[in-house]
Amino acid sequence: MEVREKLYEGKAKIVYRGEEADQVVIHFKDEATAFNGQKKGIIEEKGALNLSISAALFSYLDDQGVRTHLLQVLGPREMLARKLKMLPLEVVPRNVAAGSISKRLGIPEGTPLTPPVLEFYLKDDDLGDPMLNRYHIRTLGLATDEQVEEIERLAWRVNELLSARLLEVGIRLIDFKLEFGADEAGRIYVADEISPDTCRFWDAGTGEKLDKDRFRRDLGNVEGAYQEVQRRLGVS
Amino acid sequence: MEVREKLYEGKAKIVYRGEEADQVVIHFKDEATAFNGQKKGIIEEKGALNLSISAALFSYLDDQGVRTHLLQVLGPREMLARKLKMLPLEVVPRNVAAGSISKRLGIPEGTPLTPPVLEFYLKDDDLGDPMLNRYHIRTLGLATDEQVEEIERLAWRVNELLSARLLEVGIRLIDFKLEFGADEAGRIYVADEISPDTCRFWDAGTGEKLDKDRFRRDLGNVEGAYQEVQRRLGVS
Repeated sequence: MEVREKLYEGKAKIVYRGEEADQVVIHFKDEATAFNGQKKGIIEEKGALNLSISAALFSYLDDQGVRTHLLQVLGPREMLARKLKMLPLEVVPRNVAAGSISKRLGIPEGTPLTPPVLEFYLKDDDLGDPMLNRYHIRTLGLATDEQVEEIERLAWRVNELLSARLLEVGIRLIDFKLEFGADEAGRIYVADEISPDTCRFWDAGTGEKLDKDRFRRDLGNVEGAYQEVQRRLGVS
Repeated sequence: MEVREKLYEGKAKIVYRGEEADQVVIHFKDEATAFNGQKKGIIEEKGALNLSISAALFSYLDDQGVRTHLLQVLGPREMLARKLKMLPLEVVPRNVAAGSISKRLGIPEGTPLTPPVLEFYLKDDDLGDPMLNRYHIRTLGLATDEQVEEIERLAWRVNELLSARLLEVGIRLIDFKLEFGADEAGRIYVADEISPDTCRFWDAGTGEKLDKDRFRRDLGNVEGAYQEVQRRLGVS
């Protein structure tokens, strides 16, 4: 069996060195964590579900002219992706109040945010992923002003595209987290994953949660919800 | 004795209706609170000290062309001020990491922030004054985009002016909190107070804290530190 060099292991994915210098292989794990790792569990088939959903959404974005890191699906839990210098930022577009923003700003869950908001967080588990503004990003040297501009533009474009695509299959995109990386030439790509682990998906008719909140809040049928998203996107 | 109509009472000040419709009288209290009211105490003469320091700094800003709410000092604990529609925002310029930003972002206290950062918070004790970005301010309808632009411009100007003025008397301006209000015509003024309660002042030579951190952190000689700031500003 081939021995691969592990470049990075996170809570949900492992990144291996690819055969080409500008490529990596990303393995999607079944382990589930929430609340910055304080809650742990296994969601059956989560790796495979999140890979196929992410691949479908990345492909859709690529077709619409948004650069993503996806190169090819290699197997049920693995994708070949562009090797990028990841920015240590989590970028969160929010269309409807839910989760942390509801608690933080006292906005009842389900309240539409008009216009939508965008939040930046520092990707740092030890610090609990604190919120950042543009001044923090500049002063900490996390990204250039031009990169932040480009990331904001891309995040809004992705929000627009995915909200429309998901609504076609009866899913409201409540909020989601994006990560970005730059290639050697400094071009910015949407990276990481776009899945029920990183998005809030609500059934457009019933409001039923079809995402990781089923795990966070012990609502049951977690795997079934992920499968439902996969089924609606036609990738099961 | 005259009975005055109380318009608002906060943790550190009471605002009374003024004789003119566009004026208020602001009374500075001796009560000290910290950590959103969880720690309480009395700092002897704090009201008088904060009033005289605020008045000196507001006058200085006025002389330099920055509009402030100060009209006149009425007595040892009271000032006549312009009646404004206050924006529910706390605006915090930071030149050096200290307090919450050090903890939140893991930056050792005393580290210069280059360039300085600016933070917005929602003034809401029940929510613990959560941090806001420009999107939150817009979506919650807290201020217009034009008001936010003007506030940022003013906050940087105030930071520049006060940093220079204070350094002349051997004080480093580490960070501070500003509040703003609008008059009937929509003009923005610097309001509230500028004092050792709302600023971090460090002795430029020794680094000794000359501000409310002496109270927050039980460092002793709180009143003496406030008096020292007053003395250096030549208003004792």
